[in-house]
Amino acid sequence: MNEPKPNLGRSLAEAADRADELAKFRNEFVFGEENVIYLDGNSLGRLPKKGQERLTRAVQDEWGSRLVRGWVNGWLLEPRRAADKIARLIGAKEREVLVCDSTSVNLFKLANAALRVKNRKVILSLAGNFPSDLYVLGGVGELRTFGTVEELLHALTDEVGVVSLSHTCYKTGQVHDMGLITEEAQKVGAFVLWDLSHSVGVIPLQMNKYNVDMAVGCTYKYLNGGPGAPAFLYIREQLLPHLRNPIRGWFGHADPFGFQPEFKPAETIEKFMTGTPPVLSMAALEPALDVILEAGVDRIRKKSFLLTEYLIALVNERLTKYGVSVASPIESRKRGAHVALAHPDAWKLTQAMIAHGVIPDFREPDILRMGLAPIYTSFVEVYDAISMLENILANNLHVKYESSRTGVS
Amino acid sequence: MNEPKPNLGRSLAEAADRADELAKFRNEFVFGEENVIYLDGNSLGRLPKKGQERLTRAVQDEWGSRLVRGWVNGWLLEPRRAADKIARLIGAKEREVLVCDSTSVNLFKLANAALRVKNRKVILSLAGNFPSDLYVLGGVGELRTFGTVEELLHALTDEVGVVSLSHTCYKTGQVHDMGLITEEAQKVGAFVLWDLSHSVGVIPLQMNKYNVDMAVGCTYKYLNGGPGAPAFLYIREQLLPHLRNPIRGWFGHADPFGFQPEFKPAETIEKFMTGTPPVLSMAALEPALDVILEAGVDRIRKKSFLLTEYLIALVNERLTKYGVSVASPIESRKRGAHVALAHPDAWKLTQAMIAHGVIPDFREPDILRMGLAPIYTSFVEVYDAISMLENILANNLHVKYESSRTGVS
Repeated sequence: MNEPKPNLGRSLAEAADRADELAKFRNEFVFGEENVIYLDGNSLGRLPKKGQERLTRAVQDEWGSRLVRGWVNGWLLEPRRAADKIARLIGAKEREVLVCDSTSVNLFKLANAALRVKNRKVILSLAGNFPSDLYVLGGVGELRTFGTVEELLHALTDEVGVVSLSHTCYKTGQVHDMGLITEEAQKVGAFVLWDLSHSVGVIPLQMNKYNVDMAVGCTYKYLNGGPGAPAFLYIREQLLPHLRNPIRGWFGHADPFGFQPEFKPAETIEKFMTGTPPVLSMAALEPALDVILEAGVDRIRKKSFLLTEYLIALVNERLTKYGVSVASPIESRKRGAHVALAHPDAWKLTQAMIAHGVIPDFREPDILRMGLAPIYTSFVEVYDAISMLENILANNLHVKYESSRTGVS
Repeated sequence: MNEPKPNLGRSLAEAADRADELAKFRNEFVFGEENVIYLDGNSLGRLPKKGQERLTRAVQDEWGSRLVRGWVNGWLLEPRRAADKIARLIGAKEREVLVCDSTSVNLFKLANAALRVKNRKVILSLAGNFPSDLYVLGGVGELRTFGTVEELLHALTDEVGVVSLSHTCYKTGQVHDMGLITEEAQKVGAFVLWDLSHSVGVIPLQMNKYNVDMAVGCTYKYLNGGPGAPAFLYIREQLLPHLRNPIRGWFGHADPFGFQPEFKPAETIEKFMTGTPPVLSMAALEPALDVILEAGVDRIRKKSFLLTEYLIALVNERLTKYGVSVASPIESRKRGAHVALAHPDAWKLTQAMIAHGVIPDFREPDILRMGLAPIYTSFVEVYDAISMLENILANNLHVKYESSRTGVS
């Protein structure tokens, strides 16, 4: 391997780790395979130790022994407690947030409900939005997508019922201007519906400050809630009475256990619940949120700038000559916590890195996503990961891997 | 306590347990508090030991160590494997069943999809159907409910798009005639949509034999999948191409990880998936299903007859004088695996029984549900539970408890 310039070398990374006031939070997480460098916390966050403890109790003591009594004063209260903690992370009031179902189901509920308010049919989004969001939205209304935010804003008319974007793009990591887009959409009477999945827990968010109407988000990425943990949704307090959940169910009833034949929706945001909450998939979420809240999103964002800037500097210095380029915004405040690297052999490189103990992920057609979850990622890991990628490229270690994706990465 | 007649006494129960060929399956389950008699397996089934082991692995080894690699050749395959096992329990073909979301969300998807096929709006159900099902159906179409099956059948016209009933009534335990109702509904071109939640795992079911169009069901009751485990849905093979999932999402795409901008639904039943599966809530389901499959639903049903008949005989002999009556059908083949007992103080009695280590559950306004999950319930438990209830009634131990419900039971 080539020696990097001294100012970007491993000793700098070591010094940065020593100076990192969040470094101690690594101890809050399980490191099952000590030698794996995990750069995919934007797909699935690591297991918090307190989450593991909580899960053991939920299975053994509660399901195993308390049985159905686990619900009363227990499981029934967990979605609300988790939601109130998420509210703090996104600058919303308690009871403006709900934890239930999947991000896609929640997006369906909110987009559907919002279109009905003014009986509008048109939804605007970006072509680069998360494909699943586009699938959902296209099934709910007349979806129009655009290449840029400017084009989208230009298309705002009083036909538009909903503008729905991801705050941070899952692919490039680009962060959109929530205040501007919200304001412009509301000028024509449209509601905004933000997907916060790749922002929550790593970027300070301000639902109330920007008067955001609605949002959804995922809890298994930077919030570390666990694989398939339930999603959340946010509704602006004043908007809530005007929205109707299209998927009614007993957990959205004003008195779920009254077993009344008539549906009477809850007056609170709980009216957007539907069926029985997935207890075990939700159990680790609250302790996971506690870790993020204790670290503080402002500090997490600050470390995120340093980590991603360091990675970009290393790439520019050492990988450009192998055809690697940075596909994320260079200006830190316009970038989320992952850095997208473009290379024609991105899929082969992903496989080679995984085989060598570094786990990034891949997005079609040519993107290596380097997710640097600040709560448990060290500067030395960034250094070692880029050194590994350099070694792979310099020695063509990736050429033997398959050239097209056949599974999930 | 009064001594019962010798022919129904505890020694009979002990003899029945000795003769019970399913008795050994008790060892497959965790008995956390040895002295609790659990008669609420129709709300939340017990924890299977193999389910607990699976959950420990899923958390520690997979989430904790494999991390995002847990998906490939792992978590992604679990919904299909569980669904194929459920297919065996309900007399359906593999790939006619899917595991996803909650029962209510699945009912929404299927009722919505079915109404669109012929552009009909009317849904028929019974007033005594599970309230959540009525809430969902009332949000999807023009719902008309009836007091009896005869009244419902009489109301069948070519306006009716869907007939949706619970196979076993959650409250009374009454089992409806699936063959007859399906046939009559189909005569007017309506689709049937059965809720199998209180039948699956305890009653042999025959989707294919009766040409059932669609069904949904819960996995956390007699299937012992765990609190909030994902639900299942069934679609008749020939009907599948005509149904469109109203809640699109990436897991319903023909190539979920291709991240294509256009939605192209899977051609298989997977097109009815939406978001990311709740991995931890699903992890215990497959081992739980293995226990049921090994025991065999025919044998489970046979034991269920004996257990419920024994309970009814004990009630008739010992509790009638205290005002307890059997609110379930007396004819065994018309009754599910629980027995509903009616008493004006049912809620007080429920609380008193729980305080004395017997866990039934309560349904408004006056029903004590005695759920006798045959796979882990013994005849001695039935005897002891009824003796306890007799003791409570004889000594008025229940009068001190609160008279109206304030939580979930």
